[in-house]
Order: sequence, then structure tokens, then C-alpha cells
Amino acid sequence: MIRKHFAGFAASALALAVSAQAFAGTVTTDGADIVIKTKGGFEASTTDKEFSFKLGGRLQADFDQFDGIYTRNGKTANEAYFRRAILELSGTAYKDWKYAFNVDFGESGSSKWDEASITYTGFKPVNVKIGRFDPDFGLEKATSSKWITAIERSAIYDLADWVNDKQDGMGVQVSGVAGDMFYGSAGFNRAKNNEDVNGKNNNTYNLRAVFAPMAEAGNVLHLGLNYAKRSTEDFDGRLRSRLNVRGTTEDGVNGNRPDFAPAVAGQFDGDSAWGLEAAFAAGPFSIQSEYLRRDIDAKSGSVRDDREATGYNVQLAYTLTGEARGYRLEGGRFDSIKPTDKQFGAWEVFYRYDNIKAEESNFVDTKAKIHTVGVNWYANEAIKVSANYLKASADNVVNTAGDDDGDAVSLRLQYAF
Amino acid sequence: MIRKHFAGFAASALALAVSAQAFAGTVTTDGADIVIKTKGGFEASTTDKEFSFKLGGRLQADFDQFDGIYTRNGKTANEAYFRRAILELSGTAYKDWKYAFNVDFGESGSSKWDEASITYTGFKPVNVKIGRFDPDFGLEKATSSKWITAIERSAIYDLADWVNDKQDGMGVQVSGVAGDMFYGSAGFNRAKNNEDVNGKNNNTYNLRAVFAPMAEAGNVLHLGLNYAKRSTEDFDGRLRSRLNVRGTTEDGVNGNRPDFAPAVAGQFDGDSAWGLEAAFAAGPFSIQSEYLRRDIDAKSGSVRDDREATGYNVQLAYTLTGEARGYRLEGGRFDSIKPTDKQFGAWEVFYRYDNIKAEESNFVDTKAKIHTVGVNWYANEAIKVSANYLKASADNVVNTAGDDDGDAVSLRLQYAF
Amino acid sequence: MIRKHFAGFAASALALAVSAQAFAGTVTTDGADIVIKTKGGFEASTTDKEFSFKLGGRLQADFDQFDGIYTRNGKTANEAYFRRAILELSGTAYKDWKYAFNVDFGESGSSKWDEASITYTGFKPVNVKIGRFDPDFGLEKATSSKWITAIERSAIYDLADWVNDKQDGMGVQVSGVAGDMFYGSAGFNRAKNNEDVNGKNNNTYNLRAVFAPMAEAGNVLHLGLNYAKRSTEDFDGRLRSRLNVRGTTEDGVNGNRPDFAPAVAGQFDGDSAWGLEAAFAAGPFSIQSEYLRRDIDAKSGSVRDDREATGYNVQLAYTLTGEARGYRLEGGRFDSIKPTDKQFGAWEVFYRYDNIKAEESNFVDTKAKIHTVGVNWYANEAIKVSANYLKASADNVVNTAGDDDGDAVSLRLQYAF
Repeated sequence: MIRKHFAGFAASALALAVSAQAFAGTVTTDGADIVIKTKGGFEASTTDKEFSFKLGGRLQADFDQFDGIYTRNGKTANEAYFRRAILELSGTAYKDWKYAFNVDFGESGSSKWDEASITYTGFKPVNVKIGRFDPDFGLEKATSSKWITAIERSAIYDLADWVNDKQDGMGVQVSGVAGDMFYGSAGFNRAKNNEDVNGKNNNTYNLRAVFAPMAEAGNVLHLGLNYAKRSTEDFDGRLRSRLNVRGTTEDGVNGNRPDFAPAVAGQFDGDSAWGLEAAFAAGPFSIQSEYLRRDIDAKSGSVRDDREATGYNVQLAYTLTGEARGYRLEGGRFDSIKPTDKQFGAWEVFYRYDNIKAEESNFVDTKAKIHTVGVNWYANEAIKVSANYLKASADNVVNTAGDDDGDAVSLRLQYAF
Repeated sequence: MIRKHFAGFAASALALAVSAQAFAGTVTTDGADIVIKTKGGFEASTTDKEFSFKLGGRLQADFDQFDGIYTRNGKTANEAYFRRAILELSGTAYKDWKYAFNVDFGESGSSKWDEASITYTGFKPVNVKIGRFDPDFGLEKATSSKWITAIERSAIYDLADWVNDKQDGMGVQVSGVAGDMFYGSAGFNRAKNNEDVNGKNNNTYNLRAVFAPMAEAGNVLHLGLNYAKRSTEDFDGRLRSRLNVRGTTEDGVNGNRPDFAPAVAGQFDGDSAWGLEAAFAAGPFSIQSEYLRRDIDAKSGSVRDDREATGYNVQLAYTLTGEARGYRLEGGRFDSIKPTDKQFGAWEVFYRYDNIKAEESNFVDTKAKIHTVGVNWYANEAIKVSANYLKASADNVVNTAGDDDGDAVSLRLQYAF
Repeated sequence: MIRKHFAGFAASALALAVSAQAFAGTVTTDGADIVIKTKGGFEASTTDKEFSFKLGGRLQADFDQFDGIYTRNGKTANEAYFRRAILELSGTAYKDWKYAFNVDFGESGSSKWDEASITYTGFKPVNVKIGRFDPDFGLEKATSSKWITAIERSAIYDLADWVNDKQDGMGVQVSGVAGDMFYGSAGFNRAKNNEDVNGKNNNTYNLRAVFAPMAEAGNVLHLGLNYAKRSTEDFDGRLRSRLNVRGTTEDGVNGNRPDFAPAVAGQFDGDSAWGLEAAFAAGPFSIQSEYLRRDIDAKSGSVRDDREATGYNVQLAYTLTGEARGYRLEGGRFDSIKPTDKQFGAWEVFYRYDNIKAEESNFVDTKAKIHTVGVNWYANEAIKVSANYLKASADNVVNTAGDDDGDAVSLRLQYAF
């Protein structure tokens, strides 16, 4: 009696479904269907793509030990600190309106914005972003702090800190991709503390253009051009660098962040910077290089002269376990390495060379170069452990003990949820 | 063979259900049934109403440009800033216990409470709220900052800033609705910095009564009465106003927040305020008006005299696209406009007139009036874009350049998730 | 025709299921099955235990009134404040990696870490924790601030504040349970402000061992031993206590936190502490006691002598409604009381005696004892209301009015979500 059999099966399957329901409560929505996800954080999005919500974060616990020019008195110092501890909220409402609400609780006592922005994506392929966010300048800056190769981004950015720093300001940025190989962005930002004497904020302008004929993980050819200019009434022209070790500023007792050009109040009023980017990746191997040049103009009639700061770096990275670094044309940037072996994770080694120089006719050229070697262990998609060894040497820049070189070890434990 | 057919259908439907489950993981609870929701934020609540959780927030990115009396030197200033950037957590446990945990990361460097309170709703219809929250005084204050019509609330509240400001204190409030037309609240608050010389905190008392015989969206007749009194040993009696432009205090370089009565340390010890509210709405049209009077008593034997500050406003608003402003009797307040046209959103225009005055026998009466016209675009339920033009003129109050009037433009982009 | 009946039933049940689905949207995942939960906060975890996410918090609104030695001038003071207002995020990624991201917004103006840590649980039964967290020392400290019996932990901890305070530092801790009756932890921490002159941070070492042959709610026999030592170049040896009333430091006007040993800059360089714990619980009754001794060594050649501070307490608690205090061997600590009567909650009464003493040959021994009686109402698993009465008396310690004793009342409303 096949019919009876069938019907009996159907009934008992239903009974099973009903009883399972009796022990585990149901979860429904009062509107569109929703898909949820947890990988340590939490996401919910409607299947019709109209709405979404995501809560995550990143925790970067760092330890640095350093000596020589990295310190004031030349004796070994160290520091343990949270480099970043960001709570990240983002979402979509009515499909085309996105927000990012990222607060950094990194060092104790105060919270500051990592990003607070609203993006309209309705003019495809162009996105318009408004709010507080870092201006777009440079490949390593475009790459998330979670997925840069070295623990700290290159010292060349120290030469022009305003080009990719929000400076507590607010801005507007237009960006977009085209033809599967072009990405560009243009924006302006008004730094909180860059105002004229009447309290009118000055603008910083940023342009970035990326051409990436090869634009996928393990198969990257990336060329980029950046330009930034800011209006300012007056600034002191100071140039200084952490030489890739952040602990030097976290350590208030003996950390040193040497001057490459002295601050001279009220002598400069012109400020612009150029940047070049190049990167190539083939499977687990990648090479990337950036060049930055900043022009600081002395005021007419100033006792000082124009200043020029230039820097470049080259970085070689190789993933021993074979994974390629991710790449995204949107944003023109590298992305995470996702380990294939769930047991041992992914292992990456790298070497970076940084070179910076500052010039003004009133002082002898100051220079520094930093060698960084390091290893990254991507235990899984959430955990990354990094160890870097750095060796810096400077010309015509010394600490109070007369050191013009120094060594450092940096360690990081990162949890991205 | 209809029977066979039926059974076969049942079996294949089940098979389908099972296979769908194999591709998409299931979501269940280990207790009561739950309904979840995302509109950019996230909500979960049990269907038995015993428990709920909600995470949302608001981001208000503002830009103000202003001159004349709005500045110190009379020259045009401007400022871009986050007026509010609030992370809002709220929930219910065991049906009658609710919490609100709202932190404002608005301006950089520090976080402050928007609200941190616990409410017991078990004595229906009376609610008891304990914690840090703004005292209840005035219709525009009762209305959420997300859904007020102008970008800033009326300048009349500047005359008595403590009447609806939590001042980092803590309080208790009892409130409730009755007969579908009455709402009332009574509470006290202890401001952090209002203590006697022995460190005993003084109380602020608030009473609000609302009679709203018409109390639904587009059909409102609302009358309200407010009284507030605070104990204080000693205060300086200073009266000043931003004249409805917040950027004047955000701009530390040239923003001006003029005094309407000078601070004189230790001369005053009595402080109370009255307020009246009236509102009427018919479909897309609404008119509302508020009156406030504050009495500041000089100490006996003081060299100063009693001060009196009075203010009133009238606001007319009209939604061009036809939507009515929401209204809630609970709280005696207007609520959001929900656009019916999903493509073009809702458009609202308004005009507000504010008038404030301060008097003491020792100085000539100071006065100001502000005209505000504006337009609000409610792109959807999450996004609101506002533009206001303001024209202020004062009597017997000038900036350092001698200006007694000024103009301002304020813009806001709001994301409520 | 039973077959037909069956098949018809199956078909209509399916139709019902389909129509129910039509009104309420479905919730699924794109991967592993997930269970969600809300008890005022929110949790999601995959059923395979690989991933989880939890968002909750605690709000403790306190009010203290106090006089005598608790104040500077001896006259009654009071203060209302948030003792804690912690937003708590935690989760698991890839089964063995856990994080805790707890920010305390307790008192306005600044946020600070309650905990920011990453724990690896893969070396079972041993856990390795890295980041910022309070070192493990003492039974009352190990117990969550939500579930300690008195409003404040014992004054004996004031004698050695660094032994269980993270001090804005970072550390590593190894802990584990064994044999269902042993728990132990060992760790070190580097306080932010404990550095040598070269900016090298000093270590604090902590050891804790617990033997609990009875280790379940209502059936506890717990013995514990603690040792902590810190390296430090130099410290002032100051000893002071809030005498169990936190409002004394929240009240900046008249609150008093008396010195039991004066600060003398640069005279001390040795610092270690011992602690003993004992607890017994039988059903609703519990008794617990702790002893702490700190040895402060004067520098060789110092004008000061070694200091010794000792303290002990005894606490008796009884749950009138019969519930037992929870207990967890992991962490060696008491846990929450869960009310069985959903209508009236659980009621607990307790008495605690604290005794502290400080000695150095250069001053007469200073002492204090505090009697605390209190009642806790656990309205449900989220709400706890506490009232404590405290009576303190000191020897050889007075405020500016000459008081050596004082009374206090402390109230707390707690919401744990």
C-alpha cells in the first residue's frame, strides 16, 4: 500500500517538524526576509538588499621595544598599548543610503572618531560620501589598518600628515570605478583647526586616480596618482617622523619622534603634495612601492625658505602558505589574506624599505631610512599576529644622547570581529 | 487517484522544504519566539512582549555659515561639525523594566550621555523613570531632536537652560497619560554642579501638564503648562543665547554667543520658570507657539536687583507633499513625518519667529528677535536633509564690531538608524 | 477512508505553514545554524559552537549620603552618580578565540576600559588571556561587580589598590581549573604609569590558587591564596581608603578619602601583597572572609621606615526567599542569585565587618573598622536594588572637623542587560 506509506511518512515528518518547533522558539520578521550572520560580530540584512546592519570591531594590542634614536636618552624603552580598539557600526537604509559609525576607544580616557559618514550610492557607479572620514591618498593608506603588511604604515606619510588624516574635520568625497580597471576619488575636507582669523574653515582638496589593468587577488597590476592641496593662512612647517614605531609617541617618558624640519611659527602658507603608487602581485608574491613629495611654501618676505620633503618605499611580501593578498578595485586597495588551512593558518613574510628626506636652504638636508622585516600569522579570518624588526638610521638628526640610529621590535595581536 | 496525488504533493513539498533548509541555515531561539527587524539599526523582541532589544542611533552632520552678531568681529565665519552622533541602546527585561543607554559621541574627544535611564512601567498607566535624562519642559524639547522642524530648538530655552537639561545630574520622573487626552509628568533632578558648600546636591523640580483633546497625526489640539524651580545657594544670573545657530559655539575662533544679562558672581539665589505651549495641526499644516518666563531673584542685600527673562515663539509648518506630522500623547510631543512617496520623499516648509527679552533695573532691557525660514526633505524614514536661513536682530546687545544683527545659513544631513 | 484523511491533513498543515510564512518574513543564515536570544541584550551563536556574539551591559545608578569622617568638614554631603555604565561586547571566532570589549561610560566626559582582551581557549583546560583586564586577586574582586553582596567591595582592597586594578596597563594571564576543585591563575601586567626613567615599563606579577572541594551553588567550601608583587623604581607609599563609600570621591566639594599613611615622594621601592580567602555556603546562607597584607619597603638609606598594611573582613549573607548564591569554580567566584518567585523576586540580607590598619615606625598606627548592613532585592535576573547602611570609626585619622567616625547610606539601582 504505497499510498498509505507515503501519507504516513508525510504526517510523521510534519509531526517531527512541529515537535522540533516546540523545543526551539521560532524567529521571524514582520516584513522582508532577513539573513543573519555571526563571525564574532553580527550582521543582519534583508534579502531584498533594502536594509542591512552590521556590528563589528577591531582590537590591536601592540607591544614595542626600542632604543637609540627611537628614544630621547638612547636607552631601551618599551610600551604596551592599544593601537586601535574600534567599535564599528554600519548599515544600509532604503538601499542607497549607507552609514559608518566607527568609534576608536584606542587609548584610554577618550574616544575619537575613526569614521562617521553617510554615503549615497544611488548615482551608480558614483558614490557620494559626507561626514568625517580620512581623505583618500596613497595605496597603503587606502588599505585597511587590519590588512596592511607591516604593523605601521610607511614613514613617508609622516612627511605630509594632513593628506590622509581627517583632522577632526568634515568633508565630501565623490568616488567611483569604471571599466573594471579604473578607480578615482575627489574630495575636500575642512580640518577643525585649520581656520582663518575670522573662524572660516579652510579646505583641503584631494584627488586620487588608480589604473589597475589586473585587479584581482593574486593577479594585480596597480598604478596610482595622488594630489592634495590645502589652503591655510599660516603654519609652522614642522616635519617629524615616528620612523614606523608608534610606541615612540605612546611612551611619554622616553619615546622620541625626531624633527626633520623645525617648527617656525607663522612662516609658511603654501602646502601641497604629490603621490605615486605601484603594485604588482602574482599569486602569493607581491611588490609595492610609493613615492610622496610635499612642497611647503614660505610666506612672501619670510625669513625662511621653501621646504621640500620627499619619501619613497618598496615592499616585498610573500605568503609561505600560498594564499594571495586580496585586492579591491573599489577603493584601489589590498584586502585581507584568508587562510586556506584551518589548522595552521596562513604565514606571510615581508621586507620594507623606507626613505625620507627634508630640505630647506636654511638647514642641512635631514634624512632617514628604515629597514623593516616581519612575519604575519593569520591564524584565521579573525586573528592576526605580527612581529616586526626595524632598523632605522638618520643623517643630521640625533636624539639628546647623540644617536642617529636605532632598533625596534614591534608585536601585534589583532582580533577583527 | 486523487489520494495518491495528494500524498505525493505533500511529500515533494516536504522534500523542497528540507532541501531549502540544507542551503540556508536555520535560525531559532532557545526560549520564547522572537521577531527581528532591521531598518539600518537592529531590533529583536520576544512575541510575548517580555523581552526586547534595540540598537540604533542618529548622526546629524551640520554646517553653519554666519556673520554679524553671530560672530565676534562681524566677519563671516563658518563651521562643520557633528551636532549629535548618538549610539542608542534600549531594551526591555521581564516586561515592565526598560532601559535607555544613549551615548553621544557628537564632538570629538569625549563622549557624554544623551540618556541613561531605567523605567518601570508596571504601575500602569504611570511610568517611573530613574537615571540621567533631560527634565520635561516645553513642547519643542519634548519632541525628539530628530523630528523638530527647525534645525535648532527655539532660543527661548536659552533663557532658562537648566529647565530641560540634565546637567550631568540624576533624577526621578513620574509620568502618565489619562483619558486619551491628558499627559502629565513630575520629577526632580540633581545637577552635578549645583551643590551647597557641604557637598549636598540641590534639587530641580519640574512639572508638565498637557491637555490634548485632539491627539493624532494631522489632527492635533495641544495645550501645555510647565513649571520648574531649582534650589541653589548661589549663581551668577548670566543670560546668553546662541540665537538658534549652534555653530556659534562650535567655532571657537570667531563664534559669538552674546550676553543678554551679565554674570555677577554670588548675587542671585532664587530661580524658577513658567512655560506655556499651544499647538494645532490639520493635515499637512501645523502651528505651534510657546511662551517661557524665568524669574531670577537677587539675594537679600544684594547690589543687584531681581531679573526677569521672557520669550515666545510662533512656528508655521506645511508639508507640501501632504503628510501630517506625527503626534504622541505619551510625552505630549510631535513625532516624525513618514514620506508616502518612496521616490521623492516628503517636503516640508516652515517659518518660525522667536522673541526673547531680559530685564533688570540695573541695565537697559536687552532683546532679540530671530526669523527662521527653512525646508526639510524627508528622503525616507532614515534620511532628513534640512536647510534654514536665519535673520537675527538685537536691541542693546552688540558684538565687538558693534553689530546688533546678523544672518546665518544652517544645513543638516541626518541619518536615523 | 483513513488514507485520504491523513493526506488531507498533511496538505492543509502545509498550506497553513505556507500562509503563516507569507505574513511573517523568514529569518535564515547563509552558513551554520544560529540560535539567538534576548533578555534585554542580544546574543547569537552558531549551533556548532564555532562563532558567537553577545551585546549587553550594566547600569548602576547610585546615591550616597554620608557625614563625619566620610566628609571633609563633618557636615552631611550626598551624591548621585553612575557607578558603572558598561557597554559589553563579547564573542567567539573559530571556537577557540574569544574577545571581551567592555567600555565604561560611568562618569561623564570620558570613557574608559572595563576590559579589552583576547583569550585563547585551545590549550584546554588552560586559558591564555592577553590585553587590558584586572589582575586576579581576592574572592570579592573575582566576583562580578553585578553580583557582589555589598554595594562596594571591601575596604581592605584599598590598602593595595594595584593588586587587582588594570591601571590602564596590559597583561597576560594563564588560568585553568583541574579536578573539579582546583582553580589557579598566574599573570603579569604592566601598568601604564609604572615605568623606569628610561620609559621601560615595570611588571606586576599575580598568583591566585583556589581549592574548592564543594563548588556549586548553595554548597560551597572555598579556600584561596593570593600573592602579588610589583617592580617599581619609586613610589610615595600613600595609603588611603574610601571606607566603602564611593560617593566620597564622586563628591568633589566635601567628600573625604582619608589618608592612613602619608605620601612621601621617592622613599619606597619594594611592594608586595598576600591575600587569603575562605567561604562557605549552605543553601541560602553564606559566610566569607578575606585577609590582605601589604609590605611596603623603604629604600635603603631612606628617612622613612618599612610600612605594613593589613586588613580583613567577614561577611554573613542570607537569602530570605531561599535561593542560593551562584558559584563558579572557573574564576573561583560567587555568581548571581536567580529569583525563583517571578512575582516578588529574591530578598537577601547581609552584614559585613571590615578592619584595616597601617603601620610605620614614624607614625602612630592608623586603623579603621566599618560595619555594613544591607538588603538586596533581586526583582528578576536583570534588576537588583540595594540599600546599605555603613558605620565607620577610625583611630588616629580625622577629617578637618576632627571627626574620626561617620555614617553613610548607599542606594543602588542596577540593570544588567
